Amino acid sequence: MAEFLMEDGEMAQPENVRLSEDGKAVVILDQTQLPNVTEFLTLDTPKKMYDAIFELQVRGAPAIGICAGYCMYVLSGQIAEETKDYEGFLAKFREQKEYLNSSRPTAVNLSWALNRMENTVVANKERSVEEIVEILGAEAKEIQAEDQRMCRAISEYGLSLIKDGDGILTHCNAGPLATSSYGTALGPLFLGKERGMNFHVFSDETRPLLQGARLTSYELQKAGIDVTLICDNMASIVMKNGWVQACFVGCDRVAANGDAANKIGTSGVAILAKYYGIPFYVLGPTSTIDMNCKTGADIKIELRNPDEIKKKFYEKPMALEEVKCYNPAFDVTDHELIAGIITEKGICRAPYTESLVKLFED
Amino acid sequence: MAEFLMEDGEMAQPENVRLSEDGKAVVILDQTQLPNVTEFLTLDTPKKMYDAIFELQVRGAPAIGICAGYCMYVLSGQIAEETKDYEGFLAKFREQKEYLNSSRPTAVNLSWALNRMENTVVANKERSVEEIVEILGAEAKEIQAEDQRMCRAISEYGLSLIKDGDGILTHCNAGPLATSSYGTALGPLFLGKERGMNFHVFSDETRPLLQGARLTSYELQKAGIDVTLICDNMASIVMKNGWVQACFVGCDRVAANGDAANKIGTSGVAILAKYYGIPFYVLGPTSTIDMNCKTGADIKIELRNPDEIKKKFYEKPMALEEVKCYNPAFDVTDHELIAGIITEKGICRAPYTESLVKLFED
Repeated sequence: MAEFLMEDGEMAQPENVRLSEDGKAVVILDQTQLPNVTEFLTLDTPKKMYDAIFELQVRGAPAIGICAGYCMYVLSGQIAEETKDYEGFLAKFREQKEYLNSSRPTAVNLSWALNRMENTVVANKERSVEEIVEILGAEAKEIQAEDQRMCRAISEYGLSLIKDGDGILTHCNAGPLATSSYGTALGPLFLGKERGMNFHVFSDETRPLLQGARLTSYELQKAGIDVTLICDNMASIVMKNGWVQACFVGCDRVAANGDAANKIGTSGVAILAKYYGIPFYVLGPTSTIDMNCKTGADIKIELRNPDEIKKKFYEKPMALEEVKCYNPAFDVTDHELIAGIITEKGICRAPYTESLVKLFED
Repeated sequence: MAEFLMEDGEMAQPENVRLSEDGKAVVILDQTQLPNVTEFLTLDTPKKMYDAIFELQVRGAPAIGICAGYCMYVLSGQIAEETKDYEGFLAKFREQKEYLNSSRPTAVNLSWALNRMENTVVANKERSVEEIVEILGAEAKEIQAEDQRMCRAISEYGLSLIKDGDGILTHCNAGPLATSSYGTALGPLFLGKERGMNFHVFSDETRPLLQGARLTSYELQKAGIDVTLICDNMASIVMKNGWVQACFVGCDRVAANGDAANKIGTSGVAILAKYYGIPFYVLGPTSTIDMNCKTGADIKIELRNPDEIKKKFYEKPMALEEVKCYNPAFDVTDHELIAGIITEKGICRAPYTESLVKLFED
């Protein structure tokens, strides 16, 4: 089972990405084996790092960025053992950076973190290679620290919206496993738990990939937060029973009018919440707000393989081979269904066309 | 693969329960192996009949009743070969009836059909055993024919509510496999297909037991009806896309005020339909309307095993052993969300407190 490292007075959380004690490897929690096996992997070669990202053993945009930062620090130490010459160091650094970058070419946080590490090298070219490696270590830690501060701020704002004893319904996974700590949608629950508050969380299993079952219920249970797993189609009866005081979900992209794209099924949760008079909140960093995207209609929805619905995880197929499936990865929740958008800079309320603009003015 | 027997001018449908050609056995489609294997089982001994009902190889309340009728007819023929004496015949008949009845003690249609067959024996005690067997054969056929007429009438009323080319969303399974033919919620689609109409059906997979994937998409696909399988949480985006003109669902129990209990998740579909302005219809025989049940609040909801959510059908568990689950089998859809309740006697509209009373007055 997992050993959850505890810092002074802080909640135990699964440390999904960290530097090894000796600083010579990156240690990640293998998310592909959850919830059945909790195994930490030690990444100390470019190949192992590449595979970990490619195979989704580390997942969640912020977590991938943090992992990439630490990977380049570890690799820079290895390169520095071979060459003390700046040009030689930089060439080798770039080669390995490009290799890692090819592991998931469309992951924005991956290339963002890798570029940031490369820029750090270039900005310090007057220094010795040993000094550069040291600075890279600080930079990698800063990437993680920034994410922690961001998640922490979102968590504080989110926590201000709920009270001890509340029931919270969430969909998909936007917790510590996908970030550095706290997470976004789950952040207020972890933060509240640290402060002795107790929530009753309902985790939608989130078909077809079951992130709610495999990841959300896992990390809440491990942290000692009261969690009940339900099928997605049970959200209605749980709300009707009076067990839910607020819905917290993450977001993949928010349009300028407040329409929010998130994991498939999120819009349904929002409609149910409105029907039952329950506030529905979207939590995410300002970096997911795309002011160039006017409304949700401009957000392209990725369609995925039908086998995710018919076959994945099952012993046998659950539908005929010839049966068609419609398998969108995301849906868009209309801004009129959203009671608030919680960012690290504060809580935005309707009308979002005004409040989101203000967010970026400050 | 299935051989779907076709009668003159009728749609091919999987014949889930029928008498064998020589009348000496009951032939059923083994529903436990769907959709991967289509196997017909020949039931010609009490043990095989008991097992088929107990193991859910035949399922759906009406289908179980029909199966039980044919079973008693087949068994009565066997008994008649041993004894021509009425009292001896009746004793043996009752013994085997009680044995079958114990296969699923809570299935109302099972005991109802078995009692009806026994009453037929008793009502004809003046006749010869050979004549009684013949009359039992006619009675078993009449049980099936009554169900067919009921489903057909529901289908006709349902079909009057939709038009060629419409998109129809359905939840769980209320089709021919669960009844004799047509089914209830799916009946209008099969009937429309017979008449050359084409519908685009969206079948919710219906977690956790996946009746929508395993049964509904199976029987629609086999009948050549355009069907798209979706996860339950995709109903919202499918409606938003403008692809759904009506929702058709079955029912397990309808209260006197029109509140309707059906498979878990049905109430969520109804709320989404209301939000998107799509009519939501409940289809079922008048026998499911319980005028002694004032509102949906009086309907007790069965809670089932958490392993259905965490383990069933999967290669490995999808959540930690210690994670709690809430697994209600049904939910209640509020009458205000229902555009119409379609029975074999006609279409009831709000206010249901009046229209349902009228239904039973006629």
